[in-house]
Amino acid sequence: MGRACSKYNDQDEFLYDPKLLENLDWAFVLQFLNPPITNEQPGEEWLLVRPLKLSDFDRGYLQILSQLTNVGNVSKANFESQFQKMRNTGGHYITVIEDTKINKIIGSASLITEFKFIHECALRGRLEDVVVNNTYRGKQLGKLIVLTVTLLSKKLGCYKMSLDCKDALIPYYKSLGYKSEPGNSNSMMNRFEKEDPS
Amino acid sequence: MGRACSKYNDQDEFLYDPKLLENLDWAFVLQFLNPPITNEQPGEEWLLVRPLKLSDFDRGYLQILSQLTNVGNVSKANFESQFQKMRNTGGHYITVIEDTKINKIIGSASLITEFKFIHECALRGRLEDVVVNNTYRGKQLGKLIVLTVTLLSKKLGCYKMSLDCKDALIPYYKSLGYKSEPGNSNSMMNRFEKEDPS
Repeated sequence: MGRACSKYNDQDEFLYDPKLLENLDWAFVLQFLNPPITNEQPGEEWLLVRPLKLSDFDRGYLQILSQLTNVGNVSKANFESQFQKMRNTGGHYITVIEDTKINKIIGSASLITEFKFIHECALRGRLEDVVVNNTYRGKQLGKLIVLTVTLLSKKLGCYKMSLDCKDALIPYYKSLGYKSEPGNSNSMMNRFEKEDPS
Repeated sequence: MGRACSKYNDQDEFLYDPKLLENLDWAFVLQFLNPPITNEQPGEEWLLVRPLKLSDFDRGYLQILSQLTNVGNVSKANFESQFQKMRNTGGHYITVIEDTKINKIIGSASLITEFKFIHECALRGRLEDVVVNNTYRGKQLGKLIVLTVTLLSKKLGCYKMSLDCKDALIPYYKSLGYKSEPGNSNSMMNRFEKEDPS
């Protein structure tokens, strides 16, 4: 904890309050990890799980995202502008793994929250944009980052958290406690890239 | 338009700027409606499509939502508090159909937007909580409210809009231009209602 606190001096840099990642309910997901690791004890002392920072543009954050999908041309100014929009809006809990030995971001997952009126003015969570650098395989870091934001959504009071995924990833997310609910597990899409879909 | 403008005097009441609903690109979805209707010409002069208002608690908004799922015990103070959270946050575009003859909300759909870094700092949309009063069937009002928020997401610059749905609703959303993308149309869920999922 001492090390983590010393990392948290620059509060203004964080996308969200890093204290939210303290004391997550890891007992809830203990069965999914072997050996057990947590965001506060990620298995290697040089790994740090924390909210995205404004300075992560210079730690290769966009390069990690580009392992997931097309990022395109995003300047430092674009990044900082979008970061501030997310922070001002709230509800964007992008959480990263930093390799502090090399000062690089090596993994990321996002929790996005939505206010509802249904279910007594509930909060709903969504998992988005999960990626871990391929060269760090075998350390359960994908599980670690997914479960960290899952437990964060639980701590924030979400009544449920959902995700969209490809067929090939269904077994992986099942292994982390996510379920395909019978008759209610479809995601559909409308894409606007082209002006005319025909 | 004159009638609509006269309805828009109480700007402070709206969840989002009602001007955003003007001049949506209905040509993009014309093939899905017969006869053609739009949010500005909804087929009956006593129907009004507009953003949710703070005063809609007294127009039966929660009763309409309860046709969709469990709403639970939400007081007027709870409603107003959640409404202000949504307005302050932004990204919550709840859009309703009012029957102005009886001063009641008879339909609703929500567009929720999310800021991304991927795809050149893109905006993503999601369709949530679609409901139309059963007694208004046969007027294409479900299509009207879904397409209204779909076109709103396009106007706001979303690169895509997605939805989660039950098996039985897949053909319906297909008829409105949404697609199940091969190999990538799964929604999975983690529910936290119970402390222990076992």
